[in-house]
Amino acid sequence: MINEAMVKLGKKRSVIREIFEYANKRKAEIGAEKVFDFSIGNPSVPTPQAVTAAMERIIKETDPVKLHGYTSAQGAEGVRRAIAENIKKRFDFEADPDLIYMTCGAAASLTVLLNALINRGDEVVIPSPYFPEYRVFAQKAGADVVEAPCREGDFQLDLSVLEKALTARTRAVIINSPNNPTGAVFSEETIMALARLLYKKQEEYGADIYIIADEPYRELTYGAFVPYIPKYYDNTLVCYSYSKSLSLPGERIGYISVSPRIRSAGELYAAVCGAGRVLGFVCAPSLMQYTVEKCVSVTPDVGIYKRNRDLLLNALTEYGCTVVPPDGAFYLFVKSPEPDAYAFCERAKKYELLFVPGDDFGQKGYVRISYCVETGQIERSLPAFNALMNEYKK
Amino acid sequence: MINEAMVKLGKKRSVIREIFEYANKRKAEIGAEKVFDFSIGNPSVPTPQAVTAAMERIIKETDPVKLHGYTSAQGAEGVRRAIAENIKKRFDFEADPDLIYMTCGAAASLTVLLNALINRGDEVVIPSPYFPEYRVFAQKAGADVVEAPCREGDFQLDLSVLEKALTARTRAVIINSPNNPTGAVFSEETIMALARLLYKKQEEYGADIYIIADEPYRELTYGAFVPYIPKYYDNTLVCYSYSKSLSLPGERIGYISVSPRIRSAGELYAAVCGAGRVLGFVCAPSLMQYTVEKCVSVTPDVGIYKRNRDLLLNALTEYGCTVVPPDGAFYLFVKSPEPDAYAFCERAKKYELLFVPGDDFGQKGYVRISYCVETGQIERSLPAFNALMNEYKK
Repeated sequence: MINEAMVKLGKKRSVIREIFEYANKRKAEIGAEKVFDFSIGNPSVPTPQAVTAAMERIIKETDPVKLHGYTSAQGAEGVRRAIAENIKKRFDFEADPDLIYMTCGAAASLTVLLNALINRGDEVVIPSPYFPEYRVFAQKAGADVVEAPCREGDFQLDLSVLEKALTARTRAVIINSPNNPTGAVFSEETIMALARLLYKKQEEYGADIYIIADEPYRELTYGAFVPYIPKYYDNTLVCYSYSKSLSLPGERIGYISVSPRIRSAGELYAAVCGAGRVLGFVCAPSLMQYTVEKCVSVTPDVGIYKRNRDLLLNALTEYGCTVVPPDGAFYLFVKSPEPDAYAFCERAKKYELLFVPGDDFGQKGYVRISYCVETGQIERSLPAFNALMNEYKK
Repeated sequence: MINEAMVKLGKKRSVIREIFEYANKRKAEIGAEKVFDFSIGNPSVPTPQAVTAAMERIIKETDPVKLHGYTSAQGAEGVRRAIAENIKKRFDFEADPDLIYMTCGAAASLTVLLNALINRGDEVVIPSPYFPEYRVFAQKAGADVVEAPCREGDFQLDLSVLEKALTARTRAVIINSPNNPTGAVFSEETIMALARLLYKKQEEYGADIYIIADEPYRELTYGAFVPYIPKYYDNTLVCYSYSKSLSLPGERIGYISVSPRIRSAGELYAAVCGAGRVLGFVCAPSLMQYTVEKCVSVTPDVGIYKRNRDLLLNALTEYGCTVVPPDGAFYLFVKSPEPDAYAFCERAKKYELLFVPGDDFGQKGYVRISYCVETGQIERSLPAFNALMNEYKK
């Protein structure tokens, strides 16, 4: 009688969530220090002090009727202007405040955008491995999902695979760089080749193909250059979130930026507004909009993540793991030493090591290890990793 | 190529929005004091000082990693427990924290719930007049909308009209009391009769029919008793929002409460979680969740709204308007002195009086006048209202 598809989606706890629950249970049983939970993607670095200070000042100094009142649906003008200026300054790209739409975070950016773009039966191409919710969001918007596996050596886009995945029904390709779960940053060369391919296919099919650039991890890089895709390909829509960059995942604040180079950018922006409206996003949380306005150029301290990454990457490599060194985000994507990643994860549990099989990300034979944890946890876990890997050397 | 339905929804500025823009233009031309904008539904009373104080204390005292981190999708346990206890205390009804789902406000409560309940082709019955977004939300979830006009004398539910509207395809009836736009509060007698009718129809069709009790205005009443519908009818789902009660409309915080008396409450709650997930609501804004936890029993100062209501109601009645005195919310629903409410609104503009025709709310021949404004604006506007109504006495 009620919607069974929704029941299933609500009941199927994600693997990540199940491991999280298991971790809590184990921590209660044997002590939090002895459980090594590498399953979650919750930033372990606090929001910068400048953000807290801005929030406090805004609450103290702003008329509460204005501060907590509705903003316009697309977001307060001030924050949209601040973001556009920041894009101009950082990327030398003419973003338009009137083509920026504030959202309740990255997930909302994606659902709003997909509902704006998709007509039932359109295809959305997703390079794999990928964040599992992409599939759910695209399908709910009416799209058929087409996976395009990345190159297994370095997890860069495989252009020949992508080319085969594109059809007359392709409406969008979701590009997530830095990538969850692999940590790969797609190089400028790759993005240029992707742009050439898509221009060619647009012409061939006489239809628009959009890149949805999902960039919640843009600021979390370890030296790699992250190309700003709208500069390379006109039909680009950027989804951004402050969840990771300002460590505000619970506050739900991000934006969609429609490139002014899109031929019918105004129409597309109207569709974004329409989709936001029918999905029930009245406006993005107002206090967070005003906070972002003041903190648009605050950058996160990636030093801690880099230290964690190096510590874990070096140790795991030493113990015999195969890992592609991540250029960004806060995940290691590690080749399972046995073909079945679920079996590897189960074996790891004996050592109180918890991480997530890659299967849910569309990649068998790998596990995702989140290093957005206390550095102490990594240090304490190393003997366990060593012992686990030794099992495979017998 | 993109979704045209979304473009249309995004482009069609609501009448309310258009009047709002017109008001801003006129204010710039002739001065803000001389424009009498009664079109908007943004609370004019600031959030209670206790709420601001709680927010400040939470920011000062909570570990920012926890404060701004993801909560579980259904909401932090503390706020769900606080809300359940509050429901128990106020209504003597056993709410279950594990059947409460925190949302990004009233609109999100409705879209999540409708997507959880509806299978394509189900019908949703909406007593009219009604908040126009109900139609858009229900249709996007796949439902066919069936209007059931209220009694024109007092805008109470018309049970015989409702009975005819119910079919084997009816999945839900949306009950909004206190009502936007009429201000009517549905009496206990009415709710009891509605419950009897729905029980009878459930039996007749062998199917569940849910009441969606949309209650953003529950706390804004002027003495009327607002029945807590889950006590009268088992298959009830309450949508609540703190937008009006705590004057936090921009912050997007509310909840869905699934009645534990629903036979398969657990399944339905799972569907709610599933719908929240696919629509992109990861969790409700975390700072606001913790704030509500501390402020669950803070009540708004309705004195200002009552003063505004009495002032305007008495004056308009004296000038010859026909108004059903509102028992709640902050709107007067006034009979247009000419058949075409649009014409009446246009004529009012000559006097710088701005309000909204009832047509968009599904009721021709009426206008909605919002009195959530500064009292001074009402006082200054009275001669204009008098002059306007005098035109109809010639």
